[in-house]
Amino acid sequence: MLAQSLPAEETVRLVAVRGGIGAVPGVRLAGVHAGIKPRKRDLAVVVFDEAQVCASVITTNEIKAAPVLVSAEHIALDGTFQAIVCNSGCANACTGARGDRDARATARQAGALLKVPATSVIVASTGVIGVPLPMDRVQRGLERAIDQLEHGLKSSNDAAEAIMTTDRVPKLAAYEFYVGEKKYTVGGIAKGSGMIAPNMATMLAFVATNLPMPAEALQHELRDAADATFNMISIDGCMSTNDAVYAFAPARNGKPPAAFAKALHHVCQDLALAMVADGEGATKTLTVHVTGAKDLAQARTIGRAVINSNLVRTALYGEDPNWGRVIAAAGAVNAGLDPDTWSLLLNGKTWVETGAIEVLSEAEAHRELEITDIVVELRLGIGDASATAWGCDLSKDYVRINANYRT
Amino acid sequence: MLAQSLPAEETVRLVAVRGGIGAVPGVRLAGVHAGIKPRKRDLAVVVFDEAQVCASVITTNEIKAAPVLVSAEHIALDGTFQAIVCNSGCANACTGARGDRDARATARQAGALLKVPATSVIVASTGVIGVPLPMDRVQRGLERAIDQLEHGLKSSNDAAEAIMTTDRVPKLAAYEFYVGEKKYTVGGIAKGSGMIAPNMATMLAFVATNLPMPAEALQHELRDAADATFNMISIDGCMSTNDAVYAFAPARNGKPPAAFAKALHHVCQDLALAMVADGEGATKTLTVHVTGAKDLAQARTIGRAVINSNLVRTALYGEDPNWGRVIAAAGAVNAGLDPDTWSLLLNGKTWVETGAIEVLSEAEAHRELEITDIVVELRLGIGDASATAWGCDLSKDYVRINANYRT
Repeated sequence: MLAQSLPAEETVRLVAVRGGIGAVPGVRLAGVHAGIKPRKRDLAVVVFDEAQVCASVITTNEIKAAPVLVSAEHIALDGTFQAIVCNSGCANACTGARGDRDARATARQAGALLKVPATSVIVASTGVIGVPLPMDRVQRGLERAIDQLEHGLKSSNDAAEAIMTTDRVPKLAAYEFYVGEKKYTVGGIAKGSGMIAPNMATMLAFVATNLPMPAEALQHELRDAADATFNMISIDGCMSTNDAVYAFAPARNGKPPAAFAKALHHVCQDLALAMVADGEGATKTLTVHVTGAKDLAQARTIGRAVINSNLVRTALYGEDPNWGRVIAAAGAVNAGLDPDTWSLLLNGKTWVETGAIEVLSEAEAHRELEITDIVVELRLGIGDASATAWGCDLSKDYVRINANYRT
Repeated sequence: MLAQSLPAEETVRLVAVRGGIGAVPGVRLAGVHAGIKPRKRDLAVVVFDEAQVCASVITTNEIKAAPVLVSAEHIALDGTFQAIVCNSGCANACTGARGDRDARATARQAGALLKVPATSVIVASTGVIGVPLPMDRVQRGLERAIDQLEHGLKSSNDAAEAIMTTDRVPKLAAYEFYVGEKKYTVGGIAKGSGMIAPNMATMLAFVATNLPMPAEALQHELRDAADATFNMISIDGCMSTNDAVYAFAPARNGKPPAAFAKALHHVCQDLALAMVADGEGATKTLTVHVTGAKDLAQARTIGRAVINSNLVRTALYGEDPNWGRVIAAAGAVNAGLDPDTWSLLLNGKTWVETGAIEVLSEAEAHRELEITDIVVELRLGIGDASATAWGCDLSKDYVRINANYRT
């Protein structure tokens, strides 16, 4: 198991539940085989009984896929939302004017079938870049999915499967939280096993809650949660044209309580860690706690630098206790590392003390690296801020998966 | 063969010659086995007959090895230089106070043997991080090397070998250039096959010329040449604690002519391309020309992003004509790519036209990728600036070399 972020002081009553986004009251969904991929489920539809506000965190890549741009347009209209349509097997990215038309047509067709405005539909795609969507299959798939909409675990699992590319397992997470005595749910589904998988694109996540709130509050909470979770994982350091996280809540005025932020954070963290554990070719996971930082930004920058380093990741794969690579990766990003104050822990044991004094012997450190889930703590010795980043090793299988997707 | 930078208009008479830094008149050198490594040559000494000015471009990593810091101190004294000592087998990085003492002692011992000030010696190390230099062996190695100092190809080759880590071949380059009718030489040696090789560190290059010039002029020319060459290659995107390029010239006032800049650029480019071709586990090289950029900075940023992408590099290894990965990597760095104006060429043939229209079929593009040295041109369609970046594929062997250095 990947280690969680460092514990916070505050306690909030949270209960993990099954069912992902399908556990949220008022959510019905389905995942079907539309024929975009040869055999597997490839089209998910999520429908909200009540009108929703929508928040989003999308790829900052200058090359954005058509559905990302069309959904951003819908969100900018400041209206409400009723549905999500997401296909796998085709990213609808770098598809020119036709891609734009196809993304709009998908929203329009779903809207017509559900009797809601096209602009109340969020569209998303993941899969091959540069290939157009087979729109006849999308249309038939939409009809079939909308016929099968259901609340609960089974349909949530089908939908999570339908958005998979190289993922080996569907990714779901849900928590119940309390506002006074009243129970609410926040749940999500996600996909992603390489930031851009073999000729595919994307990490995608869809999260919903039945706690009503204004769009700005949801956006604020989603941004915070994504920065601490989805933005702190890396599988290959690559950013896709289709990456997007969308969150939904019934529209109402008022500030959401701290319990919601906590629950949303947990859902996002569970989904993010599921992606890392399912990383392409991964044989080990790596949790990097950066502590003693001058501020959160420094801690996050350095944490990300360590999990992104090909040399740290190959050393992890080879169970090679090469702490020089960890500290060299941390120093390379120029985030204000002090070369005289850092120290390193491996799985909770002092590895290298301040002054570059090796405490664990090479043999001892090697034994620590034989386990599957490795935890490194880099103490900067500068201040009080901390952050956690999660990654995985770089294996021969990663190269195989990404070199030979056709064979 | 890696493709050179895009041709410039100006022509200058340059003649490639053998002998690397040892081809430069007034340079004597040697490479010996001091016993830092079990069997191979591991200590190089370069001596200048005439006092030199020294320019440098060093790692921006916040964790800098002791010899990098000590040499920077010597350069800051604004004196002149008489020698270089460089060992492989030990990076003398993350070695605390002892590392600093050892680097100073190396300069002092070499100075004593050569009867020159310790501060006129540049020291450099490459190899394992976190392990101290065996100073008794360094001392004996220095004595042996200084006994064997010679001008020319043979000793230059020995010295280039003595600074190798995972390199498979020694790297030398030299050019003759003309100022009026008078012939001068600029030559260099270098090492580097991973930016940080297995538990090793570093790309290092030492370049010298017999054309006299002031230190500031040499610094200016070296910075320009390094930015266009050493800073435009990547093997794994990792930056070492020991990276350094040092250039030497006899001290004199006056501005060097354009012919020198050209010759220096050629030496640096040859050495940089030799590193890429010798990249750890590399089976193919990749030259990326970015053209039609708004300025040089944009062209360079985007070129580096493409050669650093693990997904581009695995696709190259698998001969997978996945142009989506090239453009996604270019867009991810937010350097001002216009999604509507770019086009791509593969080995000089139009691959993808503006508007994301695939021109080469998948089969045709796959055939182009079967050759060893691949050239991609990314036309941004924005302005007139261009830059070239060089890299190599990411193979299973890269993972093997970097995971299992002990076995």
